[in-house]
Amino acid sequence: MADIMHRVGIKSSKDDVYKALATREGLAACWTNNTQGESKVGGMLQFRFDAGGFDMKVLELHPAKRVLWQVVDGPEEWIGTKISWELKQESDYTIVLFKHQGWKEPVEFMHHCSTKWAIFLMSLKSLLETGKGAPAPDDIKIDNTNQ
Amino acid sequence: MADIMHRVGIKSSKDDVYKALATREGLAACWTNNTQGESKVGGMLQFRFDAGGFDMKVLELHPAKRVLWQVVDGPEEWIGTKISWELKQESDYTIVLFKHQGWKEPVEFMHHCSTKWAIFLMSLKSLLETGKGAPAPDDIKIDNTNQ
Repeated sequence: MADIMHRVGIKSSKDDVYKALATREGLAACWTNNTQGESKVGGMLQFRFDAGGFDMKVLELHPAKRVLWQVVDGPEEWIGTKISWELKQESDYTIVLFKHQGWKEPVEFMHHCSTKWAIFLMSLKSLLETGKGAPAPDDIKIDNTNQ
Repeated sequence: MADIMHRVGIKSSKDDVYKALATREGLAACWTNNTQGESKVGGMLQFRFDAGGFDMKVLELHPAKRVLWQVVDGPEEWIGTKISWELKQESDYTIVLFKHQGWKEPVEFMHHCSTKWAIFLMSLKSLLETGKGAPAPDDIKIDNTNQ
């Protein structure tokens, strides 16, 4: 098993960062414009991109603290993996500890996703700090997949 | 053991990407302005930042293909870890597969470093594609460490 990990610090309150991660509107403003579904425990979220997408089951929603999803549909390597967002306060920053856990193998696609998650975390930071994120399809491209 | 992995695609030749990764000048233009030492097999490179830095021993230099370093001094969690850069061609992109391998534990600092490596890989991409990277101290800040 292998995990992707990231950490960003956002000059914003835990409540506001949580709101961005725990609502369809917030996720659409930082990850992909095409976000559908219901962000409630047991609910499903559908994230769509030009090249496909991911269906996530919402497993946990702890206000201002933690969000946990499990991937139920999407690329084969993603199915069954879990994505967690932990929030904590440090001085005037909300720290986001991100994990995408449970990859069976550290395949090349995992390398791509690791870099891309960093880009989307920076989009989340930008959304909270400036009011404007960079969700797909206007996300920063990192390689020849155009994703 | 835990690894950090990333993948970027750069619209440039393998030779030019290799040159950026295998020379003191190239590294100073994408990672940190304060890069000293000799990039030759068995040589040492010193990377310095406001908050400290890393000393790397150059283990492998395969032109247009692969660079491998081992950390010999720096933060405790880094010592003994290895950093590899693999290059390959895909259409008009040079793909860089990056690994920072051998972390003893997936500590919070590893989360930070994972995000920060993504930022520096995007700086490498920018250096090759536009002629201008964003090395420290003008690097993009990701959290409350100001690193």
